[in-house]
Amino acid sequence: MADAVFARVAIVGAGLIGSSIARAARDYGAARQVAVLDASPQVMDRVRELGIADETSGEAPQALKGADLIIICTPVGVCGAVAETLAPHLEPGAILSDVGSVKGAVVAQVAPHVPEGVHFIPAHPLAGTEYSGPDAGFASLFQNRWCILTPGEDADPRAVARLDDFWTRLGAKVEAMSADHHDKVLALTSHLPHLIAYNIVGTADDFGEQTRSEVIKFSASGFRDFTRIAASDPTMWRDIFLGNREAVLEMLGRFNEDLSVLQRMIRRGDGEGLFAFFTRTRAIRRSIIAQGQDTAAPDFGRRKSD
Amino acid sequence: MADAVFARVAIVGAGLIGSSIARAARDYGAARQVAVLDASPQVMDRVRELGIADETSGEAPQALKGADLIIICTPVGVCGAVAETLAPHLEPGAILSDVGSVKGAVVAQVAPHVPEGVHFIPAHPLAGTEYSGPDAGFASLFQNRWCILTPGEDADPRAVARLDDFWTRLGAKVEAMSADHHDKVLALTSHLPHLIAYNIVGTADDFGEQTRSEVIKFSASGFRDFTRIAASDPTMWRDIFLGNREAVLEMLGRFNEDLSVLQRMIRRGDGEGLFAFFTRTRAIRRSIIAQGQDTAAPDFGRRKSD
Repeated sequence: MADAVFARVAIVGAGLIGSSIARAARDYGAARQVAVLDASPQVMDRVRELGIADETSGEAPQALKGADLIIICTPVGVCGAVAETLAPHLEPGAILSDVGSVKGAVVAQVAPHVPEGVHFIPAHPLAGTEYSGPDAGFASLFQNRWCILTPGEDADPRAVARLDDFWTRLGAKVEAMSADHHDKVLALTSHLPHLIAYNIVGTADDFGEQTRSEVIKFSASGFRDFTRIAASDPTMWRDIFLGNREAVLEMLGRFNEDLSVLQRMIRRGDGEGLFAFFTRTRAIRRSIIAQGQDTAAPDFGRRKSD
Repeated sequence: MADAVFARVAIVGAGLIGSSIARAARDYGAARQVAVLDASPQVMDRVRELGIADETSGEAPQALKGADLIIICTPVGVCGAVAETLAPHLEPGAILSDVGSVKGAVVAQVAPHVPEGVHFIPAHPLAGTEYSGPDAGFASLFQNRWCILTPGEDADPRAVARLDDFWTRLGAKVEAMSADHHDKVLALTSHLPHLIAYNIVGTADDFGEQTRSEVIKFSASGFRDFTRIAASDPTMWRDIFLGNREAVLEMLGRFNEDLSVLQRMIRRGDGEGLFAFFTRTRAIRRSIIAQGQDTAAPDFGRRKSD
């Protein structure tokens, strides 16, 4: 195996993503040592039981000692407070990063606490499941997934390259862009779809008991895919919508405009308009398959897993 | 194998569903003979090449001769015209059924053409993929899927029981309800989710080329699941929205009201409200898994197929 990219990576927050990084860093030899730190004693206990880290004292001074890469993996809403707590223990030359789903808000919260000589390079691995906690993680979570880095304009290119190497070692495809651009693209590809999924599941929940039970019974016909998305971690998503408010509201505005057009077509019985619209959206699906982001296997009904 | 339920089933329209019924009826011994009829000579040629039917003349008199079950599998929009064409060839005692995704509109179109002595029992198998045409079909499509029958109040119970047997033989779980109730439940579980999915994919398509290519690139983070839904057959979905207009518009109205509430929470930064909402939707997902409508496997990222 090639040399480790970092001597010691410290993971702060051992949820799905943090615990997966810990496992992957070790399994793929991306760091010689892995330290894990979590504010919850129960989570620290579980991390020890799972045996996914070398350093599990649960104390910042021990965990961060000698760490040349520190990754904040907490919910976005607390990463500023976490950075403030970590700051006194960050060593000169170390790289501080994160995994937040929004980047502008993270930069605003974390940057003021980064000590001189520490490289702050935000990152966002586009990977996850609808499960949470240290037991939900696994080493291969980042394989063939994108990891977007959003270094500031004055970031040290060598530090950026090392973080790129780290994520590449974990199996990710790495791309860099500005935090602002990241937030716009993700508002459309991730945040808005989740908001919509949450909303439609909520609409169903407002019906009476009988209808609700039928909705669940017949969910395979489209609704089920929404519930899967809407089952993601509530804390994480609250923080995303608060942290990327402007871009999400802008995308939501566009979505609403477009939906009004479809609604009007249905009300007026405009079959030609509906057909043209549905044909256009089909082409996007084909592009996604062509770019290898999904397979063409007809598993819409998810037959194999039933 | 048990005795066949029907002597001869005639499938009218050899798309994904029709060709799957033809294959399944034969593979699972639900009918002794299978006749397939399609308005398109090219489709009839393909049906002959695939060898999925015993009678492939493409002529209604031959296809329907001796048929004790006739299933209209065309798009919903033309099923009235199709029923009118078939009517002179339907034999007394035969059961006429369909597979339409809306039921009220199908009943309104088809019922006037059903001859005396023929049992009209509408049906809707909740199964499908995002693919279309005779090549897309397969015999196991209906295994463990629901098939909803919507017999009229004066329907012959023996005819209903035979159709129930037929679908059970194909592997489906059968349930009966009124056409009106079916259309309300499906508006929420299937039609509205599809409309939303079409809409969000359309919103993405309206962006410029660069953003669009990034949306496709980073689609794994939620958006991809929508494109899968939005890739379904445009003709079928046009007919569904036109055929179930009232129920869809009512559900869309509720959806929009709820979305306004979420939008307001985001704009006002109401973290508690968002958290409570997202926690509630998570419970619905758990109910669906508990009822066996989906697995708990964390394949949101669809790792295995990548």
